[in-house]
Amino acid sequence: MKLILNKKPKDVTIIEGFPGFGLIGTIATEFLMEHLQTEKIGIIEMEEIPAMIAIHQNKVIEPISIHYNKQYNMVLIHAINIGKDMGWKVAAVIEDLAKALQAKEIISLEGVGSPNPTTGRVFFYSNRNGKVSQKLTAAAQPLMEGIIVGVTGALLAKQISVPIVALFAEAKSNLPDSQAAAEIIKALDAYTGLKVDPKPLLKQAEMFEKKLKSLLQKSQEAEEIHEDKKLSYVG
Amino acid sequence: MKLILNKKPKDVTIIEGFPGFGLIGTIATEFLMEHLQTEKIGIIEMEEIPAMIAIHQNKVIEPISIHYNKQYNMVLIHAINIGKDMGWKVAAVIEDLAKALQAKEIISLEGVGSPNPTTGRVFFYSNRNGKVSQKLTAAAQPLMEGIIVGVTGALLAKQISVPIVALFAEAKSNLPDSQAAAEIIKALDAYTGLKVDPKPLLKQAEMFEKKLKSLLQKSQEAEEIHEDKKLSYVG
Amino acid sequence: MKLILNKKPKDVTIIEGFPGFGLIGTIATEFLMEHLQTEKIGIIEMEEIPAMIAIHQNKVIEPISIHYNKQYNMVLIHAINIGKDMGWKVAAVIEDLAKALQAKEIISLEGVGSPNPTTGRVFFYSNRNGKVSQKLTAAAQPLMEGIIVGVTGALLAKQISVPIVALFAEAKSNLPDSQAAAEIIKALDAYTGLKVDPKPLLKQAEMFEKKLKSLLQKSQEAEEIHEDKKLSYVG
Amino acid sequence: MKLILNKKPKDVTIIEGFPGFGLIGTIATEFLMEHLQTEKIGIIEMEEIPAMIAIHQNKVIEPISIHYNKQYNMVLIHAINIGKDMGWKVAAVIEDLAKALQAKEIISLEGVGSPNPTTGRVFFYSNRNGKVSQKLTAAAQPLMEGIIVGVTGALLAKQISVPIVALFAEAKSNLPDSQAAAEIIKALDAYTGLKVDPKPLLKQAEMFEKKLKSLLQKSQEAEEIHEDKKLSYVG
Amino acid sequence: MKLILNKKPKDVTIIEGFPGFGLIGTIATEFLMEHLQTEKIGIIEMEEIPAMIAIHQNKVIEPISIHYNKQYNMVLIHAINIGKDMGWKVAAVIEDLAKALQAKEIISLEGVGSPNPTTGRVFFYSNRNGKVSQKLTAAAQPLMEGIIVGVTGALLAKQISVPIVALFAEAKSNLPDSQAAAEIIKALDAYTGLKVDPKPLLKQAEMFEKKLKSLLQKSQEAEEIHEDKKLSYVG
Repeated sequence: MKLILNKKPKDVTIIEGFPGFGLIGTIATEFLMEHLQTEKIGIIEMEEIPAMIAIHQNKVIEPISIHYNKQYNMVLIHAINIGKDMGWKVAAVIEDLAKALQAKEIISLEGVGSPNPTTGRVFFYSNRNGKVSQKLTAAAQPLMEGIIVGVTGALLAKQISVPIVALFAEAKSNLPDSQAAAEIIKALDAYTGLKVDPKPLLKQAEMFEKKLKSLLQKSQEAEEIHEDKKLSYVG
Repeated sequence: MKLILNKKPKDVTIIEGFPGFGLIGTIATEFLMEHLQTEKIGIIEMEEIPAMIAIHQNKVIEPISIHYNKQYNMVLIHAINIGKDMGWKVAAVIEDLAKALQAKEIISLEGVGSPNPTTGRVFFYSNRNGKVSQKLTAAAQPLMEGIIVGVTGALLAKQISVPIVALFAEAKSNLPDSQAAAEIIKALDAYTGLKVDPKPLLKQAEMFEKKLKSLLQKSQEAEEIHEDKKLSYVG
Repeated sequence: MKLILNKKPKDVTIIEGFPGFGLIGTIATEFLMEHLQTEKIGIIEMEEIPAMIAIHQNKVIEPISIHYNKQYNMVLIHAINIGKDMGWKVAAVIEDLAKALQAKEIISLEGVGSPNPTTGRVFFYSNRNGKVSQKLTAAAQPLMEGIIVGVTGALLAKQISVPIVALFAEAKSNLPDSQAAAEIIKALDAYTGLKVDPKPLLKQAEMFEKKLKSLLQKSQEAEEIHEDKKLSYVG
Repeated sequence: MKLILNKKPKDVTIIEGFPGFGLIGTIATEFLMEHLQTEKIGIIEMEEIPAMIAIHQNKVIEPISIHYNKQYNMVLIHAINIGKDMGWKVAAVIEDLAKALQAKEIISLEGVGSPNPTTGRVFFYSNRNGKVSQKLTAAAQPLMEGIIVGVTGALLAKQISVPIVALFAEAKSNLPDSQAAAEIIKALDAYTGLKVDPKPLLKQAEMFEKKLKSLLQKSQEAEEIHEDKKLSYVG
Repeated sequence: MKLILNKKPKDVTIIEGFPGFGLIGTIATEFLMEHLQTEKIGIIEMEEIPAMIAIHQNKVIEPISIHYNKQYNMVLIHAINIGKDMGWKVAAVIEDLAKALQAKEIISLEGVGSPNPTTGRVFFYSNRNGKVSQKLTAAAQPLMEGIIVGVTGALLAKQISVPIVALFAEAKSNLPDSQAAAEIIKALDAYTGLKVDPKPLLKQAEMFEKKLKSLLQKSQEAEEIHEDKKLSYVG
């Protein structure tokens, strides 16, 4: 596992939204990248994940890439497909990234399931109990009970020195949920002073989720075809 | 596998109750933590277990955490989910913990199955045969025959210098058994001079086991959802 | 994994066509080797792939071999069967090869699936955006959207300093497609100044694909027979 | 894999009877331990075998333990459950043990299947061909043909300097066979000068095999219950 | 993996016939060992293959053993059961053996399948193209097309400095084929000047193959019984 950085902006806020419940973190991160000016400043190379890239608008999207927004001094981690059981390893690399950039905070964007979802609740957990910003408590409610798996769970399980704030948008089911993603953007705006308008996410929700499902399908087909034994060729 | 300690109280008694038969060790340890004043003094990081945390009363509960009670100079090991086949590895870390704290004793809390369970029998095994405390023989009967698997089995199989006392509460079946856990608390009180009243455990047994089953269910769902391939997203 | 080179020509163009969609890269590379004068200058030894060689015209064909054409200062990588999940490892060795030979460019030959395939479109992706040769844009269209798996995907995912141009011929299905391979040869000729006439590939397409299927079959049988337990012999 | 010895008697005869055909080695070793005075002088720690101990007569029985009998200067290796595919590893540790104790001989107790079993035949194989003791040829017949798997097979396959004599009692089937075990004790007595009367083994054969089957059953249940996913508890 | 040699004759011809198509290499090697005077000069220890030996005429036959014939200065490698996927590893050890003995040549004995097998054709492949001995071309035809898996394939795939000649006897099917083995002995005689008469192999073909099938059966039973879980014994 290798962290490759071309630039090292300091004192940044790191935002990570790895594939999780309702794909909320992923959708939110995608949306941020479309609406903030970012430059790619690095990638994470991981041999354990499938060898796969996406090409989007004639640009390569690596499995995990790192982007920098100067205006808000923010670093966004974008992830396509990290495979299974990668939680601990990815969390370790994010820790390295936070050290290399002397990050002042890591913000995790996640979804949480709820049996009776009220309209658009967002919860938070901060590893700096007692020193929680007013802006945060204004934007979200403290998460009292829950089970967090994956990268965010691994980050919170390790004893790392960087402050972590995890935001959880309530989602109705495990299907891609742009509305919940929009709510998390709202909370993120309120907490960090970001000014990204989530309305386009709601408007395009339907269209966007159609595109997602089609991409998911293609991704799976690409992998299955590649694994197909008939492709072994003897010359 | 890493043992991370923020404090190192010396000459302590270590109490471990890893998930086992009837979940007795786990229930007992949970109960002790609710009724003793404890501070978290460390965690065990293990890459082999699923990346997962629980949030309970707005506090993160790591897969394996270490807590200290000053009054009785006791260290409690709390474990959520250690996966399969971790017995030897976890036993090795407990050995390291015992050395780091110069522990005077390790007490294991376990369940044992019984075809005709009499009311609330508790058995013991001590690796200091011949030097068994009267308090112990008053509180429990020596275990003559049995098969012990998991962390406790691994601890007893290794030749370690720290005295180990394993307590076994007889359980009717493999379902969570708060009554057996209450019996083991009684025996623990009698042996160590602890003064934790097990009656609340019996009163709340039914309510507690309901909550447990619901948590177990959520935990499994969280893991299955996370492993679901549809979550691989191509942006 | 070992790279063994008997010669080290410098400043070369490396052409790789590993087994992929429509076997296009493989067919194209085979064709190039039959119509260019090449000498074998090395092999890649990989313990992770099945121990298997082919004998063709009384010459051994190793799992992965490296060939040099003096006229165009070109290095061709020929691969028979690299097994599954080898993308990252093979990409790393190609990177080593490119360094050892101070390659000026790597050209990947690949297939891409298309629901409504137009006649013989070829796409390209270059990791030197903005510095794309006119010859390339004349020969192929930029690939806007797609998912690339395997060696080519791994090469593009890594941050390597060597310029990479990936050519993608549109294929109707995942079956061996000589026509698409012919189109990619055309594009390659236009881009590099190579003068390999693809017409024989089209003429012999049918005959060639028959031979391929028969070879694929034999290869699978050879592997199955070898794995057959009855071959364990006790003397 | 660790060999832990508290004492190191020298010039001993090592007797090993690992689980094998008809459980003959195991039954014989158990019987010897019940009828010879032994003290435990060490254990073998192996992470690859299941973490499990047995408690028998209020004593811990580790997966592999080492016992010493002073009268005959004999070391007995007792094994409960060594899992699969451990032959080579265990043989390597026995080699270390033999070196540490400067053992003069290793005697392996094994079973061998026979289509038409004659009454109680015992065979032998010695890695000191040509220098076979008369006592041995009086007690057993040379094994001409056979296939030996497991620890004994691994011991004979390695080139070790310690003399090895393997005794094979003919067994009717793969079920626990106390009669065959009794025959091997007889042969062992004749060869080594041991004076352990095998008659009790025959008398108690039926009772003993019942106890064995019940223990086997419990052992399997204990392992299955422990592996049951429901035991993952979220607190 | 360890190569253990008690003697190191120099400038030898190494003959290897690992289990392969039609078991031809194995049958031929067995036959050579019965009709040449050989002494065992070493073994190859491999942890990856099943722990198993054969006893034949009261002699241990290790999984892989090395034998020396003085008259022809020949080293024969005898293999019983090398498991799956061992091709690369075994080829590496043979390379070490060839270096240790400064072997002048390695001769591989193999089978090759043929749809319409003519009577007793034998093919050859030599890694010294252009310097092929007349004796060889008189004894066998060059192999033009084929797929070679296993140890021989791995040997030919690696770039080793020792001359290799692989002989392939055409076999009708994958069943043990003594006739094809006899043809390969004839070719070997013609090439090397060996004077081993293959006629007994033909005469005893039927009897020999019966014995083989019975041994194969016993070998498989021995392995299955050993793996049977019921053999885990709790004492």
